[in-house]
Amino acid sequence: MNVFVIGIGLIGGSMAKDIKRFNPAAKIYGVDINEAHVDEALALGLIDEKASYADLAIADIVIVSIPVDVLVRELPIILDAVHDNAIVIDAGSTKALLCKVVDNHVKRRNFLACHPIAGTEFSGPSAAIENLFEGKTNIICEVEKTAFKLQEKALDLFQKMGMRIRYMNAEAHDKHIAYVSHLSHISSFMLGKTVIEKEKNERDIFDMAGSGFESTVRLAKSSPAMWTPIFEQNKENVLETLEEYIQNLEAFKQMIVEDNFKGIYSEMREANKIKEILNGIPQNKN
Amino acid sequence: MNVFVIGIGLIGGSMAKDIKRFNPAAKIYGVDINEAHVDEALALGLIDEKASYADLAIADIVIVSIPVDVLVRELPIILDAVHDNAIVIDAGSTKALLCKVVDNHVKRRNFLACHPIAGTEFSGPSAAIENLFEGKTNIICEVEKTAFKLQEKALDLFQKMGMRIRYMNAEAHDKHIAYVSHLSHISSFMLGKTVIEKEKNERDIFDMAGSGFESTVRLAKSSPAMWTPIFEQNKENVLETLEEYIQNLEAFKQMIVEDNFKGIYSEMREANKIKEILNGIPQNKN
Repeated sequence: MNVFVIGIGLIGGSMAKDIKRFNPAAKIYGVDINEAHVDEALALGLIDEKASYADLAIADIVIVSIPVDVLVRELPIILDAVHDNAIVIDAGSTKALLCKVVDNHVKRRNFLACHPIAGTEFSGPSAAIENLFEGKTNIICEVEKTAFKLQEKALDLFQKMGMRIRYMNAEAHDKHIAYVSHLSHISSFMLGKTVIEKEKNERDIFDMAGSGFESTVRLAKSSPAMWTPIFEQNKENVLETLEEYIQNLEAFKQMIVEDNFKGIYSEMREANKIKEILNGIPQNKN
Repeated sequence: MNVFVIGIGLIGGSMAKDIKRFNPAAKIYGVDINEAHVDEALALGLIDEKASYADLAIADIVIVSIPVDVLVRELPIILDAVHDNAIVIDAGSTKALLCKVVDNHVKRRNFLACHPIAGTEFSGPSAAIENLFEGKTNIICEVEKTAFKLQEKALDLFQKMGMRIRYMNAEAHDKHIAYVSHLSHISSFMLGKTVIEKEKNERDIFDMAGSGFESTVRLAKSSPAMWTPIFEQNKENVLETLEEYIQNLEAFKQMIVEDNFKGIYSEMREANKIKEILNGIPQNKN
Protein backbone atom coordinates (compact mmCIF):
# COMPACT_ATOMS: atom_id res chain seq x y z
CA MET A 1 0.00 0.00 0.00
CA ASN A 2 1.38 3.38 -1.03
CA VAL A 3 0.45 6.18 1.36
CA PHE A 4 1.22 9.78 0.46
CA VAL A 5 1.29 12.37 3.20
CA ILE A 6 1.13 15.88 1.80
CA GLY A 7 2.16 18.20 4.61
CA ILE A 8 4.30 16.30 7.14
CA GLY A 9 3.52 18.12 10.35
CA LEU A 10 1.72 17.29 13.57
CA ILE A 11 -1.35 15.74 11.92
CA GLY A 12 0.17 14.16 8.80
CA GLY A 13 3.18 12.89 10.73
CA SER A 14 1.05 11.41 13.51
CA MET A 15 -1.14 9.61 10.94
CA ALA A 16 2.00 8.28 9.26
CA LYS A 17 3.24 6.92 12.59
CA ASP A 18 -0.06 5.15 13.26
CA ILE A 19 -0.23 3.66 9.76
CA LYS A 20 3.33 2.33 10.07
CA ARG A 21 2.39 0.69 13.34
CA PHE A 22 -0.65 -1.24 12.19
CA ASN A 23 0.60 -1.75 8.63
CA PRO A 24 4.40 -2.10 8.61
CA ALA A 25 4.32 -3.03 4.90
CA ALA A 26 2.82 0.33 3.95
CA LYS A 27 5.24 2.58 2.11
CA ILE A 28 4.93 6.19 3.23
CA TYR A 29 5.82 8.96 0.80
CA GLY A 30 6.23 12.49 2.08
CA VAL A 31 5.47 15.67 0.15
CA ASP A 32 6.04 19.08 1.70
CA ILE A 33 6.72 22.54 0.31
CA ASN A 34 9.19 22.91 3.15
CA GLU A 35 12.26 20.82 2.21
CA ALA A 36 13.59 20.94 5.76
CA HIS A 37 10.36 19.31 6.98
CA VAL A 38 10.71 16.46 4.48
CA ASP A 39 14.30 15.87 5.59
CA GLU A 40 13.28 15.98 9.23
CA ALA A 41 10.39 13.56 8.59
CA LEU A 42 12.83 11.17 6.88
CA ALA A 43 15.30 11.43 9.74
CA LEU A 44 12.53 10.81 12.26
CA GLY A 45 11.35 7.78 10.28
CA LEU A 46 7.88 9.29 9.73
CA ILE A 47 8.19 8.71 5.97
CA ASP A 48 10.11 6.23 3.82
CA GLU A 49 10.73 8.43 0.84
CA LYS A 50 10.52 11.98 -0.47
CA ALA A 51 8.03 12.41 -3.28
CA SER A 52 6.30 15.00 -5.44
CA TYR A 53 2.90 15.40 -7.13
CA ALA A 54 4.43 13.65 -10.19
CA ASP A 55 4.47 10.43 -8.13
CA LEU A 56 0.81 10.64 -7.05
CA ALA A 57 -0.31 8.19 -9.76
CA ILE A 58 0.97 5.30 -7.59
CA ALA A 59 -0.84 6.46 -4.43
CA ASP A 60 -3.50 4.29 -2.77
CA ILE A 61 -4.16 6.68 0.11
CA VAL A 62 -3.38 10.39 0.13
CA ILE A 63 -3.51 12.35 3.41
CA VAL A 64 -3.53 16.10 2.86
CA SER A 65 -2.73 18.00 6.05
CA ILE A 66 -1.82 21.54 5.07
CA PRO A 67 -3.13 25.01 5.98
CA VAL A 68 -6.69 25.48 4.71
CA ASP A 69 -5.84 28.28 2.27
CA VAL A 70 -3.28 26.08 0.54
CA LEU A 71 -5.69 23.16 0.77
CA VAL A 72 -8.45 24.78 -1.31
CA ARG A 73 -5.87 25.59 -3.98
CA GLU A 74 -4.04 22.25 -4.00
CA LEU A 75 -6.81 19.69 -3.50
CA PRO A 76 -8.17 19.96 -7.10
CA ILE A 77 -4.61 19.49 -8.44
CA ILE A 78 -4.03 16.50 -6.17
CA LEU A 79 -7.32 14.92 -7.27
CA ASP A 80 -6.31 15.43 -10.91
CA ALA A 81 -3.13 13.44 -10.28
CA VAL A 82 -4.46 10.34 -8.45
CA HIS A 83 -5.77 7.13 -10.04
CA ASP A 84 -9.39 6.06 -9.87
CA ASN A 85 -9.05 3.82 -6.82
CA ALA A 86 -7.12 6.23 -4.65
CA ILE A 87 -8.76 7.85 -1.61
CA VAL A 88 -7.77 11.40 -0.76
CA ILE A 89 -8.41 12.51 2.84
CA ASP A 90 -7.95 16.00 4.23
CA ALA A 91 -7.72 17.20 7.83
CA GLY A 92 -8.74 20.85 7.52
CA SER A 93 -10.42 22.77 10.34
CA THR A 94 -12.91 24.38 7.92
CA LYS A 95 -15.06 22.38 5.55
CA ALA A 96 -17.61 24.51 3.67
CA LEU A 97 -15.33 26.29 1.18
CA LEU A 98 -13.29 23.15 0.52
CA CYS A 99 -16.38 21.05 -0.24
CA LYS A 100 -17.64 23.79 -2.54
CA VAL A 101 -14.33 24.06 -4.38
CA VAL A 102 -14.23 20.35 -5.31
CA ASP A 103 -17.99 19.86 -5.64
CA ASN A 104 -17.90 19.56 -9.43
CA HIS A 105 -14.48 17.99 -9.68
CA VAL A 106 -14.47 14.94 -11.94
CA LYS A 107 -12.78 12.98 -9.13
CA ARG A 108 -15.04 14.22 -6.29
CA ARG A 109 -15.79 10.57 -5.46
CA ASN A 110 -12.11 10.04 -4.61
CA PHE A 111 -12.22 12.65 -1.85
CA LEU A 112 -13.40 12.31 1.76
CA ALA A 113 -13.76 15.59 3.67
CA CYS A 114 -12.51 15.04 7.23
CA HIS A 115 -11.70 16.99 10.36
CA PRO A 116 -9.99 14.91 13.02
CA ILE A 117 -10.43 16.91 16.26
CA ALA A 118 -6.98 16.18 17.55
CA GLY A 119 -3.74 18.03 17.95
CA THR A 120 -1.57 19.99 20.29
CA GLU A 121 -0.34 23.58 20.18
CA PHE A 122 2.87 22.40 18.48
CA SER A 123 3.58 21.95 14.78
CA GLY A 124 6.06 20.42 12.35
CA PRO A 125 7.32 16.81 11.99
CA SER A 126 8.86 16.76 15.46
CA ALA A 127 5.39 17.41 16.93
CA ALA A 128 4.06 14.11 15.50
CA ILE A 129 3.06 11.60 18.16
CA GLU A 130 1.77 8.04 18.12
CA ASN A 131 -1.85 7.41 19.08
CA LEU A 132 -2.75 11.08 18.73
CA PHE A 133 -6.15 10.08 17.35
CA GLU A 134 -7.07 7.38 19.89
CA GLY A 135 -10.53 8.17 21.26
CA LYS A 136 -10.78 11.43 19.32
CA THR A 137 -13.66 12.54 17.12
CA ASN A 138 -13.31 12.64 13.35
CA ILE A 139 -15.97 14.70 11.62
CA ILE A 140 -16.74 13.59 8.10
CA CYS A 141 -18.69 15.90 5.80
CA GLU A 142 -20.73 15.04 2.69
CA VAL A 143 -19.88 11.36 3.03
CA GLU A 144 -22.44 10.49 0.34
CA LYS A 145 -20.26 12.17 -2.29
CA THR A 146 -17.41 9.70 -1.76
CA ALA A 147 -17.33 6.30 -3.54
CA PHE A 148 -18.52 3.49 -1.22
CA LYS A 149 -15.42 1.34 -1.40
CA LEU A 150 -13.17 4.35 -0.88
CA GLN A 151 -15.23 5.40 2.17
CA GLU A 152 -14.61 1.92 3.52
CA LYS A 153 -10.87 2.17 2.97
CA ALA A 154 -10.73 5.44 4.88
CA LEU A 155 -13.01 4.27 7.69
CA ASP A 156 -10.86 1.19 8.18
CA LEU A 157 -7.88 3.51 8.66
CA PHE A 158 -9.73 5.74 11.15
CA GLN A 159 -11.03 2.75 13.07
CA LYS A 160 -7.51 1.39 13.48
CA MET A 161 -6.40 4.80 14.70
CA GLY A 162 -9.15 4.57 17.33
CA MET A 163 -11.26 7.51 16.13
CA ARG A 164 -15.01 7.83 16.58
CA ILE A 165 -16.81 9.12 13.54
CA ARG A 166 -19.45 11.84 13.35
CA TYR A 167 -21.21 12.72 10.08
CA MET A 168 -22.21 16.32 9.54
CA ASN A 169 -22.85 18.73 6.71
CA ALA A 170 -20.05 21.17 5.99
CA GLU A 171 -21.98 24.30 7.00
CA ALA A 172 -23.00 22.81 10.36
CA HIS A 173 -19.42 21.75 10.95
CA ASP A 174 -18.06 25.24 10.37
CA LYS A 175 -20.70 26.82 12.56
CA HIS A 176 -20.24 24.50 15.54
CA ILE A 177 -16.47 24.32 15.37
CA ALA A 178 -16.31 28.11 15.63
CA TYR A 179 -17.67 27.77 19.19
CA VAL A 180 -15.67 24.85 20.49
CA SER A 181 -12.36 25.49 18.77
CA HIS A 182 -11.91 28.72 16.86
CA LEU A 183 -13.18 30.95 19.69
CA SER A 184 -10.91 29.21 22.23
CA HIS A 185 -7.94 30.09 20.07
CA ILE A 186 -8.89 33.76 19.80
CA SER A 187 -9.57 34.05 23.54
CA SER A 188 -6.17 32.52 24.19
CA PHE A 189 -4.23 34.59 21.64
CA MET A 190 -5.73 37.83 23.00
CA LEU A 191 -5.16 36.80 26.61
CA GLY A 192 -1.51 36.25 25.71
CA LYS A 193 -1.38 39.63 24.01
CA THR A 194 -2.97 41.45 26.94
CA VAL A 195 -0.49 40.03 29.43
CA ILE A 196 2.56 40.42 27.16
CA GLU A 197 1.67 44.11 26.64
CA LYS A 198 1.49 44.61 30.38
CA GLU A 199 4.76 42.79 30.91
CA LYS A 200 6.65 45.38 28.87
CA ASN A 201 6.36 47.67 31.86
CA GLU A 202 6.17 45.07 34.60
CA ARG A 203 9.07 42.67 34.24
CA ASP A 204 8.17 40.46 37.17
CA ILE A 205 4.64 39.67 36.13
CA PHE A 206 5.30 36.18 34.75
CA ASP A 207 7.07 35.12 37.87
CA MET A 208 3.59 35.12 39.38
CA ALA A 209 1.90 33.03 36.71
CA GLY A 210 0.67 29.61 37.68
CA SER A 211 -0.75 26.60 35.90
CA GLY A 212 -4.15 28.26 35.48
CA PHE A 213 -2.65 30.99 33.34
CA GLU A 214 -0.66 28.41 31.39
CA SER A 215 -3.80 26.44 30.65
CA THR A 216 -5.75 29.43 29.31
CA VAL A 217 -2.91 30.76 27.10
CA ARG A 218 -1.65 27.39 25.85
CA LEU A 219 -3.37 27.82 22.48
CA ALA A 220 -1.64 31.18 21.97
CA LYS A 221 1.40 29.11 21.01
CA SER A 222 -0.44 27.84 17.92
CA SER A 223 0.78 28.44 14.37
CA PRO A 224 -0.38 31.73 12.77
CA ALA A 225 0.14 30.17 9.30
CA MET A 226 -2.40 27.51 10.16
CA TRP A 227 -4.89 29.73 11.99
CA THR A 228 -5.04 32.85 9.80
CA PRO A 229 -6.73 31.08 6.86
CA ILE A 230 -9.08 29.24 9.23
CA PHE A 231 -10.40 32.55 10.56
CA GLU A 232 -10.57 33.86 6.99
CA GLN A 233 -12.56 30.91 5.64
CA ASN A 234 -14.85 30.78 8.66
CA LYS A 235 -15.18 34.54 8.96
CA GLU A 236 -18.96 34.81 9.47
CA ASN A 237 -19.20 32.10 12.13
CA VAL A 238 -16.10 33.29 13.94
CA LEU A 239 -17.41 36.86 14.05
CA GLU A 240 -20.72 35.64 15.49
CA THR A 241 -19.09 33.66 18.30
CA LEU A 242 -16.57 36.41 19.00
CA GLU A 243 -19.34 38.98 19.25
CA GLU A 244 -21.23 36.83 21.76
CA TYR A 245 -18.07 36.27 23.78
CA ILE A 246 -17.28 39.99 23.92
CA GLN A 247 -20.88 40.74 24.97
CA ASN A 248 -20.63 38.22 27.80
CA LEU A 249 -17.34 39.75 28.95
CA GLU A 250 -18.87 43.25 28.79
CA ALA A 251 -21.86 42.13 30.85
CA PHE A 252 -19.54 40.55 33.43
CA LYS A 253 -17.48 43.74 33.55
CA GLN A 254 -20.61 45.83 34.00
CA MET A 255 -21.69 43.69 36.97
CA ILE A 256 -18.33 44.33 38.63
CA VAL A 257 -18.62 48.07 37.92
CA GLU A 258 -22.06 48.06 39.56
CA ASP A 259 -20.89 45.95 42.53
CA ASN A 260 -23.41 43.31 41.53
CA PHE A 261 -21.44 40.45 43.06
CA LYS A 262 -24.52 38.30 43.49
CA GLY A 263 -24.78 38.45 39.72
CA ILE A 264 -21.08 37.61 39.35
CA TYR A 265 -21.55 34.61 41.63
CA SER A 266 -24.49 33.29 39.66
CA GLU A 267 -22.71 33.79 36.31
CA MET A 268 -19.85 31.64 37.55
CA ARG A 269 -22.22 29.07 39.05
CA GLU A 270 -23.87 28.74 35.64
CA ALA A 271 -20.51 28.40 33.86
CA ASN A 272 -19.60 25.63 36.33
CA LYS A 273 -21.94 23.41 34.29
CA ILE A 274 -19.02 23.01 31.94
CA LYS A 275 -17.74 20.42 34.46
CA GLU A 276 -20.28 17.79 33.45
CA ILE A 277 -19.92 18.70 29.80
CA LEU A 278 -16.15 18.33 29.83
CA ASN A 279 -16.34 14.89 31.37
CA GLY A 280 -17.25 13.61 27.94
CA ILE A 281 -14.23 15.06 26.09
CA PRO A 282 -11.27 12.77 25.36
CA GLN A 283 -7.96 14.29 26.47
CA ASN A 284 -4.40 14.15 25.17
CA LYS A 285 -2.18 12.22 27.52
CA ASN A 286 1.04 13.94 26.43
CA MET B 1 4.14 21.05 67.06
CA ASN B 2 0.46 21.99 66.90
CA VAL B 3 -0.68 23.03 63.42
CA PHE B 4 -4.14 24.48 62.92
CA VAL B 5 -5.63 24.50 59.45
CA ILE B 6 -8.59 26.84 59.22
CA GLY B 7 -10.41 25.95 55.99
CA ILE B 8 -9.61 22.35 55.02
CA GLY B 9 -9.88 22.49 51.26
CA LEU B 10 -7.47 22.16 48.35
CA ILE B 11 -4.83 24.54 49.77
CA GLY B 12 -5.16 23.90 53.50
CA GLY B 13 -5.49 20.16 52.98
CA SER B 14 -2.47 19.99 50.66
CA MET B 15 -0.38 21.93 53.19
CA ALA B 16 -1.51 19.53 55.93
CA LYS B 17 -0.43 16.56 53.80
CA ASP B 18 3.01 18.04 53.22
CA ILE B 19 3.53 18.93 56.88
CA LYS B 20 2.56 15.41 57.96
CA ARG B 21 5.12 14.02 55.52
CA PHE B 22 8.13 15.99 56.68
CA ASN B 23 7.04 16.22 60.30
CA PRO B 24 5.10 13.10 61.31
CA ALA B 25 5.08 14.25 64.95
CA ALA B 26 3.08 17.38 64.07
CA LYS B 27 -0.48 17.30 65.30
CA ILE B 28 -2.88 18.76 62.76
CA TYR B 29 -6.11 20.36 63.98
CA GLY B 30 -8.84 21.16 61.48
CA VAL B 31 -11.31 24.03 61.71
CA ASP B 32 -13.98 24.53 59.07
CA ILE B 33 -17.39 26.19 59.03
CA ASN B 34 -18.50 23.24 56.90
CA GLU B 35 -18.87 20.26 59.28
CA ALA B 36 -18.94 17.81 56.38
CA HIS B 37 -15.52 19.08 55.27
CA VAL B 38 -14.04 18.50 58.72
CA ASP B 39 -15.43 14.96 58.78
CA GLU B 40 -14.12 14.30 55.28
CA ALA B 41 -10.69 15.71 56.20
CA LEU B 42 -10.60 13.38 59.25
CA ALA B 43 -11.62 10.40 57.15
CA LEU B 44 -8.96 11.24 54.55
CA GLY B 45 -6.34 11.58 57.29
CA LEU B 46 -5.63 15.20 56.41
CA ILE B 47 -6.16 16.23 60.04
CA ASP B 48 -5.80 14.47 63.37
CA GLU B 49 -8.53 16.26 65.23
CA LYS B 50 -11.48 18.61 64.90
CA ALA B 51 -10.98 21.92 66.65
CA SER B 52 -12.48 25.39 67.11
CA TYR B 53 -11.18 28.92 67.70
CA ALA B 54 -11.34 28.19 71.45
CA ASP B 55 -8.39 25.80 70.96
CA LEU B 56 -6.20 28.31 69.12
CA ALA B 57 -4.21 29.18 72.26
CA ILE B 58 -2.23 25.93 71.82
CA ALA B 59 -1.40 26.57 68.15
CA ASP B 60 2.22 26.95 66.99
CA ILE B 61 1.34 27.39 63.34
CA VAL B 62 -2.02 28.50 61.94
CA ILE B 63 -2.76 28.17 58.23
CA VAL B 64 -5.82 30.15 57.15
CA SER B 65 -7.07 29.09 53.73
CA ILE B 66 -10.61 30.43 53.36
CA PRO B 67 -12.36 32.69 50.82
CA VAL B 68 -10.92 36.22 50.95
CA ASP B 69 -14.15 37.86 52.14
CA VAL B 70 -14.29 35.57 55.16
CA LEU B 71 -10.54 35.98 55.62
CA VAL B 72 -10.66 39.76 56.18
CA ARG B 73 -13.39 39.21 58.78
CA GLU B 74 -11.82 36.25 60.57
CA LEU B 75 -8.09 37.01 60.56
CA PRO B 76 -8.29 39.68 63.33
CA ILE B 77 -10.27 37.26 65.49
CA ILE B 78 -7.78 34.46 64.85
CA LEU B 79 -4.87 36.76 65.74
CA ASP B 80 -6.64 37.71 68.97
CA ALA B 81 -6.78 34.05 69.93
CA VAL B 82 -3.21 32.88 69.31
CA HIS B 83 -0.27 33.06 71.74
CA ASP B 84 2.72 35.35 71.24
CA ASN B 85 4.93 32.78 69.53
CA ALA B 86 2.40 31.48 67.04
CA ILE B 87 2.73 32.27 63.35
CA VAL B 88 -0.45 32.78 61.34
CA ILE B 89 -0.17 32.31 57.57
CA ASP B 90 -2.86 33.00 55.01
CA ALA B 91 -3.16 31.90 51.38
CA GLY B 92 -5.49 34.52 49.93
CA SER B 93 -5.42 35.57 46.26
CA THR B 94 -5.75 39.26 47.19
CA LYS B 95 -3.45 40.99 49.64
CA ALA B 96 -4.06 44.75 49.82
CA LEU B 97 -7.31 44.83 51.82
CA LEU B 98 -6.18 42.05 54.15
CA CYS B 99 -2.91 43.80 54.98
CA LYS B 100 -4.81 47.00 55.61
CA VAL B 101 -7.35 45.30 57.87
CA VAL B 102 -4.69 43.90 60.22
CA ASP B 103 -2.19 46.75 59.87
CA ASN B 104 -2.81 48.09 63.37
CA HIS B 105 -3.64 44.79 65.02
CA VAL B 106 -1.74 44.29 68.27
CA LYS B 107 -0.57 40.91 66.96
CA ARG B 108 0.36 42.08 63.44
CA ARG B 109 3.85 40.64 64.02
CA ASN B 110 2.31 37.16 64.34
CA PHE B 111 0.93 37.29 60.81
CA LEU B 112 2.67 36.57 57.49
CA ALA B 113 0.71 37.59 54.37
CA CYS B 114 1.20 34.87 51.73
CA HIS B 115 -0.13 33.86 48.35
CA PRO B 116 1.08 30.45 47.23
CA ILE B 117 0.46 30.40 43.45
CA ALA B 118 -0.68 26.82 43.36
CA GLY B 119 -3.92 24.98 42.97
CA THR B 120 -6.21 23.23 40.59
CA GLU B 121 -9.76 23.98 39.47
CA PHE B 122 -11.07 21.61 42.15
CA SER B 123 -11.94 22.37 45.77
CA GLY B 124 -12.73 20.74 49.10
CA PRO B 125 -10.73 18.22 51.18
CA SER B 126 -10.79 15.55 48.47
CA ALA B 127 -8.97 17.96 46.14
CA ALA B 128 -5.94 18.07 48.47
CA ILE B 129 -2.79 16.58 46.94
CA GLU B 130 0.73 15.96 48.14
CA ASN B 131 3.54 18.09 46.76
CA LEU B 132 1.13 20.66 45.36
CA PHE B 133 3.59 23.43 46.24
CA GLU B 134 6.78 21.84 44.89
CA GLY B 135 8.48 24.34 42.58
CA LYS B 136 5.64 26.86 42.91
CA THR B 137 5.97 30.54 43.75
CA ASN B 138 4.86 31.87 47.13
CA ILE B 139 4.41 35.62 47.21
CA ILE B 140 4.97 37.18 50.62
CA CYS B 141 3.79 40.72 51.27
CA GLU B 142 4.97 43.20 53.90
CA VAL B 143 7.45 40.68 55.31
CA GLU B 144 9.03 43.40 57.45
CA LYS B 145 5.90 43.57 59.58
CA THR B 146 6.28 39.97 60.78
CA ALA B 147 8.52 39.06 63.74
CA PHE B 148 11.93 37.72 62.59
CA LYS B 149 11.77 34.38 64.34
CA LEU B 150 8.20 33.79 63.14
CA GLN B 151 9.24 34.63 59.56
CA GLU B 152 11.91 31.96 59.92
CA LYS B 153 9.43 29.39 61.14
CA ALA B 154 7.17 30.00 58.12
CA LEU B 155 10.05 30.07 55.62
CA ASP B 156 11.31 26.76 56.93
CA LEU B 157 7.87 25.31 56.23
CA PHE B 158 7.72 26.77 52.71
CA GLN B 159 11.24 25.61 51.93
CA LYS B 160 10.36 22.05 52.92
CA MET B 161 7.29 22.26 50.67
CA GLY B 162 9.64 23.22 47.83
CA MET B 163 8.30 26.72 47.22
CA ARG B 164 10.33 29.62 45.86
CA ILE B 165 9.69 32.90 47.63
CA ARG B 166 9.05 36.31 46.09
CA TYR B 167 8.67 39.45 48.23
CA MET B 168 6.32 42.13 47.00
CA ASN B 169 4.19 44.92 48.36
CA ALA B 170 0.48 44.17 48.63
CA GLU B 171 -0.63 46.72 46.02
CA ALA B 172 1.86 45.43 43.41
CA HIS B 173 0.74 41.88 44.15
CA ASP B 174 -2.92 42.68 43.54
CA LYS B 175 -2.16 44.57 40.34
CA HIS B 176 0.05 41.88 38.78
CA ILE B 177 -2.03 38.92 39.85
CA ALA B 178 -5.05 40.47 38.10
CA TYR B 179 -3.21 39.90 34.78
CA VAL B 180 -1.79 36.44 35.29
CA SER B 181 -4.58 34.85 37.28
CA HIS B 182 -7.80 36.79 37.75
CA LEU B 183 -8.20 37.65 34.05
CA SER B 184 -7.59 34.02 33.02
CA HIS B 185 -10.48 32.98 35.23
CA ILE B 186 -12.86 35.54 33.74
CA SER B 187 -11.87 34.66 30.17
CA SER B 188 -12.50 31.03 30.97
CA PHE B 189 -15.81 31.52 32.80
CA MET B 190 -17.19 33.63 29.95
CA LEU B 191 -15.91 31.22 27.29
CA GLY B 192 -17.79 28.48 29.12
CA LYS B 193 -20.90 30.64 29.27
CA THR B 194 -20.75 31.53 25.56
CA VAL B 195 -20.53 27.91 24.49
CA ILE B 196 -23.11 26.64 27.00
CA GLU B 197 -25.61 29.25 25.75
CA LYS B 198 -25.05 28.10 22.19
CA GLU B 199 -25.43 24.48 23.19
CA LYS B 200 -29.00 25.04 24.31
CA ASN B 201 -29.96 25.10 20.65
CA GLU B 202 -27.21 22.91 19.25
CA ARG B 203 -27.08 19.66 21.19
CA ASP B 204 -24.17 18.15 19.31
CA ILE B 205 -21.73 20.97 19.80
CA PHE B 206 -19.69 19.41 22.62
CA ASP B 207 -19.18 16.23 20.68
CA MET B 208 -16.84 18.33 18.58
CA ALA B 209 -14.82 19.78 21.45
CA GLY B 210 -11.20 18.75 21.73
CA SER B 211 -8.41 19.21 24.23
CA GLY B 212 -7.84 22.83 23.16
CA PHE B 213 -11.33 23.78 24.29
CA GLU B 214 -10.88 21.84 27.51
CA SER B 215 -7.69 23.70 28.28
CA THR B 216 -9.20 27.16 27.81
CA VAL B 217 -12.36 26.46 29.83
CA ARG B 218 -10.74 24.42 32.61
CA LEU B 219 -10.82 27.36 35.04
CA ALA B 220 -14.57 27.77 34.49
CA LYS B 221 -14.91 24.81 36.87
CA SER B 222 -13.54 26.95 39.71
CA SER B 223 -15.49 27.75 42.87
CA PRO B 224 -17.76 30.84 42.69
CA ALA B 225 -17.59 31.15 46.50
CA MET B 226 -13.84 31.54 46.27
CA TRP B 227 -13.73 33.78 43.19
CA THR B 228 -16.57 36.24 43.81
CA PRO B 229 -14.85 37.96 46.77
CA ILE B 230 -11.52 37.97 44.89
CA PHE B 231 -13.06 39.99 42.07
CA GLU B 232 -14.77 42.20 44.64
CA GLN B 233 -11.61 42.95 46.61
CA ASN B 234 -9.51 43.43 43.49
CA LYS B 235 -12.20 45.32 41.61
CA GLU B 236 -10.11 48.19 40.19
CA ASN B 237 -7.26 46.03 38.91
CA VAL B 238 -9.60 43.40 37.52
CA LEU B 239 -11.61 46.04 35.66
CA GLU B 240 -8.43 47.48 34.15
CA THR B 241 -7.20 44.12 32.85
CA LEU B 242 -10.65 43.13 31.66
CA GLU B 243 -11.02 46.41 29.77
CA GLU B 244 -7.68 45.84 28.00
CA TYR B 245 -8.63 42.28 27.15
CA ILE B 246 -11.99 43.33 25.68
CA GLN B 247 -10.25 46.06 23.66
CA ASN B 248 -7.79 43.53 22.24
CA LEU B 249 -10.65 41.19 21.32
CA GLU B 250 -12.54 44.08 19.69
CA ALA B 251 -9.47 45.05 17.66
CA PHE B 252 -9.00 41.44 16.56
CA LYS B 253 -12.66 41.27 15.58
CA GLN B 254 -12.40 44.50 13.62
CA MET B 255 -9.43 43.14 11.64
CA ILE B 256 -11.51 40.11 10.67
CA VAL B 257 -14.43 42.35 9.69
CA GLU B 258 -12.07 44.38 7.47
CA ASP B 259 -10.43 41.27 5.98
CA ASN B 260 -7.11 42.43 7.40
CA PHE B 261 -5.68 38.93 7.66
CA LYS B 262 -2.11 40.17 7.49
CA GLY B 263 -2.91 42.00 10.70
CA ILE B 264 -4.50 38.86 12.19
CA TYR B 265 -1.37 36.89 11.30
CA SER B 266 0.93 39.39 12.94
CA GLU B 267 -1.24 39.61 16.08
CA MET B 268 -0.92 35.85 16.51
CA ARG B 269 2.79 35.89 15.72
CA GLU B 270 3.26 38.45 18.52
CA ALA B 271 1.18 36.40 20.96
CA ASN B 272 3.39 33.37 20.13
CA LYS B 273 6.03 35.02 22.33
CA ILE B 274 4.12 33.51 25.21
CA LYS B 275 5.97 30.26 24.34
CA GLU B 276 9.28 31.45 25.73
CA ILE B 277 7.56 33.11 28.67
CA LEU B 278 5.65 29.96 29.62
CA ASN B 279 8.81 27.88 29.63
CA GLY B 280 9.59 29.43 32.99
CA ILE B 281 6.30 28.49 34.68
CA PRO B 282 6.21 25.42 36.94
CA GLN B 283 3.33 23.08 36.09
CA ASN B 284 1.13 20.76 38.09
CA LYS B 285 1.91 17.16 37.34
CA ASN B 286 -1.54 15.86 38.20
